[in-house]
Amino acid sequence: MCRWQAYSGRPILLEDLLFKARHSLIDQSMSSRSAETPTNGDGFGVGWYGARPFPGLFRSIRPAWNDFNLRDLAAQIESPLFLAHVRATSLATVQETNCHPFRFGNWLFVHNGEIFEIEKIRRALLMEIAPELFSHVLGTTDSEVLFYLALTFGLERDPLGALQRMAGCVEHHARAAGVAESLWMTLGLSDGKTLYAVRYASDGQAPTLYYSKAVEDLLALGLPSETAERLGPEARMVVSEPIGKLADAWIAVPEASALRLVPGKVEVTPFRPKVPAGALPAR
Amino acid sequence: MCRWQAYSGRPILLEDLLFKARHSLIDQSMSSRSAETPTNGDGFGVGWYGARPFPGLFRSIRPAWNDFNLRDLAAQIESPLFLAHVRATSLATVQETNCHPFRFGNWLFVHNGEIFEIEKIRRALLMEIAPELFSHVLGTTDSEVLFYLALTFGLERDPLGALQRMAGCVEHHARAAGVAESLWMTLGLSDGKTLYAVRYASDGQAPTLYYSKAVEDLLALGLPSETAERLGPEARMVVSEPIGKLADAWIAVPEASALRLVPGKVEVTPFRPKVPAGALPAR
Amino acid sequence: MCRWQAYSGRPILLEDLLFKARHSLIDQSMSSRSAETPTNGDGFGVGWYGARPFPGLFRSIRPAWNDFNLRDLAAQIESPLFLAHVRATSLATVQETNCHPFRFGNWLFVHNGEIFEIEKIRRALLMEIAPELFSHVLGTTDSEVLFYLALTFGLERDPLGALQRMAGCVEHHARAAGVAESLWMTLGLSDGKTLYAVRYASDGQAPTLYYSKAVEDLLALGLPSETAERLGPEARMVVSEPIGKLADAWIAVPEASALRLVPGKVEVTPFRPKVPAGALPAR
Amino acid sequence: MCRWQAYSGRPILLEDLLFKARHSLIDQSMSSRSAETPTNGDGFGVGWYGARPFPGLFRSIRPAWNDFNLRDLAAQIESPLFLAHVRATSLATVQETNCHPFRFGNWLFVHNGEIFEIEKIRRALLMEIAPELFSHVLGTTDSEVLFYLALTFGLERDPLGALQRMAGCVEHHARAAGVAESLWMTLGLSDGKTLYAVRYASDGQAPTLYYSKAVEDLLALGLPSETAERLGPEARMVVSEPIGKLADAWIAVPEASALRLVPGKVEVTPFRPKVPAGALPAR
Repeated sequence: MCRWQAYSGRPILLEDLLFKARHSLIDQSMSSRSAETPTNGDGFGVGWYGARPFPGLFRSIRPAWNDFNLRDLAAQIESPLFLAHVRATSLATVQETNCHPFRFGNWLFVHNGEIFEIEKIRRALLMEIAPELFSHVLGTTDSEVLFYLALTFGLERDPLGALQRMAGCVEHHARAAGVAESLWMTLGLSDGKTLYAVRYASDGQAPTLYYSKAVEDLLALGLPSETAERLGPEARMVVSEPIGKLADAWIAVPEASALRLVPGKVEVTPFRPKVPAGALPAR
Repeated sequence: MCRWQAYSGRPILLEDLLFKARHSLIDQSMSSRSAETPTNGDGFGVGWYGARPFPGLFRSIRPAWNDFNLRDLAAQIESPLFLAHVRATSLATVQETNCHPFRFGNWLFVHNGEIFEIEKIRRALLMEIAPELFSHVLGTTDSEVLFYLALTFGLERDPLGALQRMAGCVEHHARAAGVAESLWMTLGLSDGKTLYAVRYASDGQAPTLYYSKAVEDLLALGLPSETAERLGPEARMVVSEPIGKLADAWIAVPEASALRLVPGKVEVTPFRPKVPAGALPAR
Repeated sequence: MCRWQAYSGRPILLEDLLFKARHSLIDQSMSSRSAETPTNGDGFGVGWYGARPFPGLFRSIRPAWNDFNLRDLAAQIESPLFLAHVRATSLATVQETNCHPFRFGNWLFVHNGEIFEIEKIRRALLMEIAPELFSHVLGTTDSEVLFYLALTFGLERDPLGALQRMAGCVEHHARAAGVAESLWMTLGLSDGKTLYAVRYASDGQAPTLYYSKAVEDLLALGLPSETAERLGPEARMVVSEPIGKLADAWIAVPEASALRLVPGKVEVTPFRPKVPAGALPAR
Repeated sequence: MCRWQAYSGRPILLEDLLFKARHSLIDQSMSSRSAETPTNGDGFGVGWYGARPFPGLFRSIRPAWNDFNLRDLAAQIESPLFLAHVRATSLATVQETNCHPFRFGNWLFVHNGEIFEIEKIRRALLMEIAPELFSHVLGTTDSEVLFYLALTFGLERDPLGALQRMAGCVEHHARAAGVAESLWMTLGLSDGKTLYAVRYASDGQAPTLYYSKAVEDLLALGLPSETAERLGPEARMVVSEPIGKLADAWIAVPEASALRLVPGKVEVTPFRPKVPAGALPAR
């Protein structure tokens, strides 16, 4: 199980949320409260939108807590929208191409969860990826396959629709392979303007997903006061895990829901997988 | 262009050939004489047969010349048969899963060369890999695809036949994609008993491949005298590049040839790609 | 706080104790039960005695649990005496030269603990290191300084005496700098024949240290049966932390004690720091 | 022998000079024309001044040419003053703390060259470092020692004076140890406002140092046209090696000279080592 967080609001130094906040993602990477995954030390990544037309990306196989470059970059880079991820794996190799976020054009994508018995359908899912996207798949995670499936199914023009088709496609192939309940996930993604998140599991028991309901929730993380002043009323965070004792103040995204966050507005809509029209016949 | 070397004979410390020999592979990794590839600093690997029923493997993304672990392991590990590889890439990512040798069961595999315009046929080639082998492909090199194609086509029971079918399969798909001359390679592989090597290019201009004709060729590399004494008359090396001024003494493997080396005997046979019977229709 | 273990006995594959045993060191590296140090993911190392006159060494900054090279080497390397270490630090940089074991000639050295307020005396301690040893100090840990101080004070001819002088020297400089209780440590070291261990703290509250009292204690770790048969009655382990529920069966080394283990015999003697005769006047 | 470059002028994306310029530093890192050092693949670093009161720093042990993070960061980070360095070493370990630039407060420091027979005087030089600076020395390069000596001798208030005292101190200890001509170097350093560089060798045969005489020299590097427009007349570069065929257009810094570059103005003054008043008696 991985952990991720995303921020949208006025530009903020990455370090304010990644390192200085109480129960920050980096703290969590070393010491989880979950018995199954005591640590998220199998690499990390952060993707951010800044001055360029495309997002920046920094990924490393080192544990986030002991990477000096991450600390240094987080102290220099300011962004109005970023996604960060710490990884725990017992499956896919620890290598940079398996670290999140994944990026394609303007899009960044992070994932927590897994496709159960992926080994039964990985080949079939790869074949569903549009040929022109195929050579962009550089790693061996199920997460990256989900991203390129969503891109294949129209992520760039209809993000939430494409994610539903991606989920439908995975469940379609999984069922055909005898795996009744295959998906278990939260997703975060963005094109630099809108932040999307999804909470879904085939069996209705998805991993957690929270968002802050007001800027005060962020101030409560103990940010430096000069930072807090600049945040503005529209700043929001989305996180894969409850943050310490503050969990009560944050809003849990319901099962099978998608979240769409533009400055000042959070929309939550149902997330319903759909088998895409052109799906290959499952073998 | 990568470089590799293989040894077969009485057990020898890896360091004797990797570090102590004149013009060793590690020396070559830093300073090639070739203008196109001035350095082979994009990772390395060594696979060796020892006391266990399966080979050992050590791969790293660091340049071979500055990796202390390699130096240390080479000083401890003794083997009668090993393959070593230093990588130079402008294509596939520098990550351990892209470093050679690749391993499957008892088999080790190294490659120098490339598949031209691989991006046009990579997807089709992946689909040729036997489904039960598919999840073993961990990296993104064309080299690893060649290895799993050969395994698909029977490498374990008919090594040279399988390699010819692999080559035939690649050329088949390449031609269908409009690439007339796709393969350009030398290969080294072993099951721990026999050492095989192949020199082949679709256009008849394959990269070089040499083998030592007698133990004296190895002694001429300036090995420590206590090592030289122990080598025995059957010790041989196969190398992807001529070794310094000693090139004259070594035997160049002819174009389109396969080499089969068992202790004391070198067989050179023609290498002729064959489209495998069950190949998928190329698009 | 780091963790370490050492083995002495008939040759065993490193993987049997590092990976296959219940509550192995590698398992522990990911999930400690200690609240202060939930994970030991800041690098690892293993040093072993084998066929060569000097020990082998493999150290890496990756978490031990996700390093494929470690897994592979542990599956190939057999040794009658080895020391392994997993690191957790909030102080010295995560780099290979800060990973244990440290090695000098035939000696290997691991350390758990710390020198309190080392920053006040690090410079003075470095000056105590014999000039001819000085250039061997490659990292920035207090552990490595302890090792070179011990070497300076005669480790090679009088191991336990030298360690007592080392401890005396540190406490001497610490007291002069106003640090009353500076040392808090367990040590493991060997010359390839004898295994030594020390448990000591200036304040009498040293970290834990255990050893197995009989080969049965090792069998209880759930080793593969073919391994267990070969262990022989003299096999022993020394560990920095109790191993799971088996803690009761192992023997806790008392405070301020040194342990000397030769095949079949364990000697425990008092450990009493002594200010070395030639110590520089503390500033 | 390492290579470095520095830029001062209007803000520019790091990638424009590090990757896009002809004969860029990254190109040079893979393929030097110098026979002694065919490659600079032993790590790299870049330090830059941006929006924060202190400089950013990104250092890695990977070869610069194959580090995706460097490529990505260089595409996002814009700076009016930065220093970049690619390393080649046969001496000090390849680890991040040995990569340049070194940083202290607002200062960044890069070095090419060496202290001959440093092993004879390293300990003495470390002792010259002010005790309050001592714990900031994290690596094992002679370069870092030079930087902390300069800081000890007043770098922050009198940069060129302090560098001359640093050089005097090194030569003083070297002569005492029987090394007549110890220093061979170029240096680059900055406090974020002024860029300094030094070319000096004890034997009058220092490594090369060049600077561009006008913005046209930079345009000639083939920068993207939109970049070129924004450069402004005051943009200058300082480089340790001649850049391709453009060497003639650049100005070679004379032996034993210091260069002081503020926007629009380059001052070259003599560089004369001075033994600092308080130097410890050489042993």
